[in-house]
Amino acid sequence: MKHPVADLIIIGSGPAGLTAAIYAARANLKPIIIEGYNPGGQLMSTSFVENWPGEKSILGPKLMMQMRDHAIHFGAEIKTEAVNSVDFSSRPFAINTDLGNTFMSKAVIIATGANPKKLNCPGESTYWSKGVTTCAVCDGAFYPNKKVVVIGGGDTAMEDASFLKKFTKEITIVHILDKFTASYAMQQRVINDPAITKIYESTVKEFHGNTNHLTGLTIYNTKTKAETKIDADGVFIAIGLSPNTAPFKNHLEMDHMGYIKVHDHVRTSVEGVFAAGDVHDYKYRQAITSAGAGCMAALEAERFLATCEARI
Amino acid sequence: MKHPVADLIIIGSGPAGLTAAIYAARANLKPIIIEGYNPGGQLMSTSFVENWPGEKSILGPKLMMQMRDHAIHFGAEIKTEAVNSVDFSSRPFAINTDLGNTFMSKAVIIATGANPKKLNCPGESTYWSKGVTTCAVCDGAFYPNKKVVVIGGGDTAMEDASFLKKFTKEITIVHILDKFTASYAMQQRVINDPAITKIYESTVKEFHGNTNHLTGLTIYNTKTKAETKIDADGVFIAIGLSPNTAPFKNHLEMDHMGYIKVHDHVRTSVEGVFAAGDVHDYKYRQAITSAGAGCMAALEAERFLATCEARI
Repeated sequence: MKHPVADLIIIGSGPAGLTAAIYAARANLKPIIIEGYNPGGQLMSTSFVENWPGEKSILGPKLMMQMRDHAIHFGAEIKTEAVNSVDFSSRPFAINTDLGNTFMSKAVIIATGANPKKLNCPGESTYWSKGVTTCAVCDGAFYPNKKVVVIGGGDTAMEDASFLKKFTKEITIVHILDKFTASYAMQQRVINDPAITKIYESTVKEFHGNTNHLTGLTIYNTKTKAETKIDADGVFIAIGLSPNTAPFKNHLEMDHMGYIKVHDHVRTSVEGVFAAGDVHDYKYRQAITSAGAGCMAALEAERFLATCEARI
Repeated sequence: MKHPVADLIIIGSGPAGLTAAIYAARANLKPIIIEGYNPGGQLMSTSFVENWPGEKSILGPKLMMQMRDHAIHFGAEIKTEAVNSVDFSSRPFAINTDLGNTFMSKAVIIATGANPKKLNCPGESTYWSKGVTTCAVCDGAFYPNKKVVVIGGGDTAMEDASFLKKFTKEITIVHILDKFTASYAMQQRVINDPAITKIYESTVKEFHGNTNHLTGLTIYNTKTKAETKIDADGVFIAIGLSPNTAPFKNHLEMDHMGYIKVHDHVRTSVEGVFAAGDVHDYKYRQAITSAGAGCMAALEAERFLATCEARI
């Protein structure tokens, strides 16, 4: 089904997309949000958030539901479907979804965020969701007093290891380098925690199991070349993110990692198409920085729409 | 009094400064906030804020007090004094306050914001706070059913004119150009409001009064050269902002308007000194964009402090 031309379509519904929607809705742009099938973005798979300014402690999903309600309250329209492809080569822009809809819009804000990366080693796909996962907050409660392993050395890995302490005391963290890359405060929490076993300079060679469920993994020490088998009931892969930019390939300039290139904060290589949040930002990746970028994208979209060229 | 060397001092206590403090405190940097004598920044002189993501409507001062509590909760230390001068030419940096204190710090975040501009015409200083003001929210309630005039054509002028409707129906807006410069939504609210008289292409020539209080003003039409006297009990000047950067002059690169120049979002011309919020941003100037920049500044300060050169 083809829809009438909108002023502004926002793709994505994390802090960037919803903040853009709040600003755009208050500016009477009647934005349409294509929220996808994981509305709310990465904060939906966190528990308590302590760094959203003004909230000492708030559940990630609660914060995101408040933002979603806020956007709807001011008139944003939400479509629960996913973008398959776009055409930014002519105006108005066309956005095609998995439900067979084509949305036409004068301006677009891309706020599709990023997804956790996988290891792509033997056994990973076999035991995916059968002990191998990327979301400690979602699945940690399934492992009370069980053996768990976190793979990675960045902020997410530190967060996951700390979070899993709610459920079990048998936590190992395996990192490919000789020291963690997470921010200082997060590293310290793990390094100073004697309950968390730290294994450095090691990668996962293979996941093992009994077909029904993971039972362990073999790790490989890149320095000593030694292989070690570790018993594990759950493994949490926390090795970084991959930006959700597949539908925009060949339509927008991207860097070698697939992040959308921006100039002037939120402008992409196509005038009238803006990007906000983790889909272009691999450096800060905070809810508050994404929300700030979402606001900028909405203000820029409003200014763009006020010019003649967008009135098509 | 000279204090021991801090890791991080944050100057200013609006959304940028307090968000920086929240992030820095959670990173164990034990930040000191020099909050000045108008803690909370510009949001303290607003009433309801509708565009802080997740809050459909919240009083500006309430939001800022929540952020201040949040920063204190995680260990930020607050000093209620004002910065008179700084020395960024040697390390650690020195910050001198009006109470005679000198604070030494390895890293500094400047988040001093911006202040409303004045007209500098005859009568302005005579009737300042006797009818002439810049803060409709603070002083609007003093003019029930009185004649009020707003000077300006930007967002603040539109906000002020709309806000004053709570108190009176005799509102005039005087703007120097032939159309408003405010964002679309804000303009529309004023343009479509028959209760607000719009006078374009005009400036204030002089304020008049009876010594005790303002009674009116003379405006000058830049096109027809005609002068017109308008009766007024209150005038609200809303012609833009001036960044609070006087103590940093000759220490940091600034633009011709006195805004601190930044590169990579929040880095100033001195390594280890960061700027966030309205003190460098004259384009977006939103609480949420300032908060995002404050977060970036804190993360950059943490990374800077982790390098050897800051360990002095």
